[in-house]
Amino acid sequence: MITTEEIRAALRKVMDPELGKSIIDLGMVRDIDVAGEGVGLTLALTTMACPLKNRMIDDIKSAIRGLDGTLTVNVKLAEMSPEDRARITAPPQPQPGLAQEFNEIKHVIAVMSGKGGVGKSSIASLLAVALRKRGERVGLLDADITGPSIPKMFGLQHAKGMSPMGLLPAVSSTGIKIMSINLLLQREDEPIIWRGPFISGAIRQFWADVLWDKLDTLIVDLPPGTSDATLTAMQVLPLSGVLLVTSPQDLAGMVVRKAASMAVQLNIPIIGLIENMAYLQCPDCSRRIDVFGPSHSEETARALGVPMLGCIPLDPELARRADTGQIEVYDLDGFTAIADQVSKRIPDVKREPMA
Amino acid sequence: MITTEEIRAALRKVMDPELGKSIIDLGMVRDIDVAGEGVGLTLALTTMACPLKNRMIDDIKSAIRGLDGTLTVNVKLAEMSPEDRARITAPPQPQPGLAQEFNEIKHVIAVMSGKGGVGKSSIASLLAVALRKRGERVGLLDADITGPSIPKMFGLQHAKGMSPMGLLPAVSSTGIKIMSINLLLQREDEPIIWRGPFISGAIRQFWADVLWDKLDTLIVDLPPGTSDATLTAMQVLPLSGVLLVTSPQDLAGMVVRKAASMAVQLNIPIIGLIENMAYLQCPDCSRRIDVFGPSHSEETARALGVPMLGCIPLDPELARRADTGQIEVYDLDGFTAIADQVSKRIPDVKREPMA
Repeated sequence: MITTEEIRAALRKVMDPELGKSIIDLGMVRDIDVAGEGVGLTLALTTMACPLKNRMIDDIKSAIRGLDGTLTVNVKLAEMSPEDRARITAPPQPQPGLAQEFNEIKHVIAVMSGKGGVGKSSIASLLAVALRKRGERVGLLDADITGPSIPKMFGLQHAKGMSPMGLLPAVSSTGIKIMSINLLLQREDEPIIWRGPFISGAIRQFWADVLWDKLDTLIVDLPPGTSDATLTAMQVLPLSGVLLVTSPQDLAGMVVRKAASMAVQLNIPIIGLIENMAYLQCPDCSRRIDVFGPSHSEETARALGVPMLGCIPLDPELARRADTGQIEVYDLDGFTAIADQVSKRIPDVKREPMA
Repeated sequence: MITTEEIRAALRKVMDPELGKSIIDLGMVRDIDVAGEGVGLTLALTTMACPLKNRMIDDIKSAIRGLDGTLTVNVKLAEMSPEDRARITAPPQPQPGLAQEFNEIKHVIAVMSGKGGVGKSSIASLLAVALRKRGERVGLLDADITGPSIPKMFGLQHAKGMSPMGLLPAVSSTGIKIMSINLLLQREDEPIIWRGPFISGAIRQFWADVLWDKLDTLIVDLPPGTSDATLTAMQVLPLSGVLLVTSPQDLAGMVVRKAASMAVQLNIPIIGLIENMAYLQCPDCSRRIDVFGPSHSEETARALGVPMLGCIPLDPELARRADTGQIEVYDLDGFTAIADQVSKRIPDVKREPMA
């Protein structure tokens, strides 16, 4: 006859997919009752409207039948008390910020565009590579929690685990320290289905609980949008400035102007504007093709009163290097001058974070 | 001598930029005290860490000095009680859902990619145009609250205002009904700096309080990411299915697999996968250029077990039409067959929304 403890042990492997923790550790399994061939239990949901309840019930049944295939399993549903719910859905508690006390980071700059897919992550990575080549100590914080692309570009899979001082970042082949949610996942294509407070919690932890050690520059790759992730990064991190990235499309220009307004409202200096995907040169006939239409970025830079730091053409080679984890061997060519501009224009004053 | 009421009237024009409402209506102005040439008042902030407090103080001083330039203004800061804060920061209350009762919408499908900038909005728009050309009654709900691009593509600026039944969508030149946050803003480049609950509230309202009337298909353009906006859309809207959009980059493929996993976890059928920005044909020498590297989408479709519905090349003409609000006159050509496929594959069963 099977015991309650065996059932609890088996159910420890069943996760609440939204909270990313075992339903046993979350205290969701109650009143386990074994009688002959039947096992009964109550699953206390955070809310009866939980979209993933059927998935959890299936997982519970499989886990128990894994112990003994002849068992019938009866799962009753209940709803947690507001107190229980508040306890388990609270944002992940950061370590006491020991790492933050220890870290010495001269400058933190964020790369932002508002719009997705204009190449924020490529620019952030190329900038990190260029600064590193000059001998700087460089970190790269991937603040795009739901669509992280930094690790793949550098060919990295996992962070280095925990030290007594904090979470250890992965280190790229040229020595760039990198932290991203995808370095903490089992599978790179696992989705992060989190609401804002969890997203913000992760970004806080990437700042306060990662052992960055001594850095000259920490580059933050912001996600698209001006909601939780961006707002938290701008409030929590002592940003020296923001680098704006746009593409020639007027549509992208409109969204980058939203991003710029946000930075201004939050009193964060704008270092300058980079236009990415500016044009493409045909490899056969060298014809210049304005893939995303004629450039609007000089106008955008003028309207915002910020320096235009450079135009980067579309280059199939960059896509190939990014896809194969080899962004560090991409030929930087024109980008070195842009990186010098960025470096020169980072404001020397360090802002105090606001929250 | 100036009166307290005059001061209140002047301050009614000062907005809390984050909440988008007058500080008077929000009950943030307290203890107005006029003594000789001096005006004192207390500004009760939602939190002392409010990043926009200096902006509000400046606005208050200007507003009062607008009444009488010789006045000195002294603003004390205080923090609201948790109850007051909860009251004013609650998500916007939807109308009683009168519009939702009245609307008759056969199918709701969402366009999703996880990653930004792969052309979700273009695909959603082209699909709307193609279905409309076949005579369908089509709506387009822009669920990208922080980076809305649908109105610009159709050359629309403003919604049609309120009717007793609900908010009236804008109507495109071919008769597509469109709702987007950018149709409700004064300026298209005004940023929406909202945390999750506000974003979710807006999406709920776009569903429940917009007078869509009778539609054959409502197409929802989801934002990048798998956080609040996407989660709310998937939980609140009775989606018949999700259309996935990717680009040839393996990086985009990884993120679209995250999006697909999310749909599976939430029990929403996947209609199929479209590859956008597949390649570019040189207008001079006709050479095919794999701008974002070789395609990985057949692999992605196979791995997900979903039909591959088509490949759409990069076309500078599409960018031009999108930027000038003329997406409805773009030559659909290859897209009509894709739209037929989508239409044929929309599951007939209507899902019940979960929350």
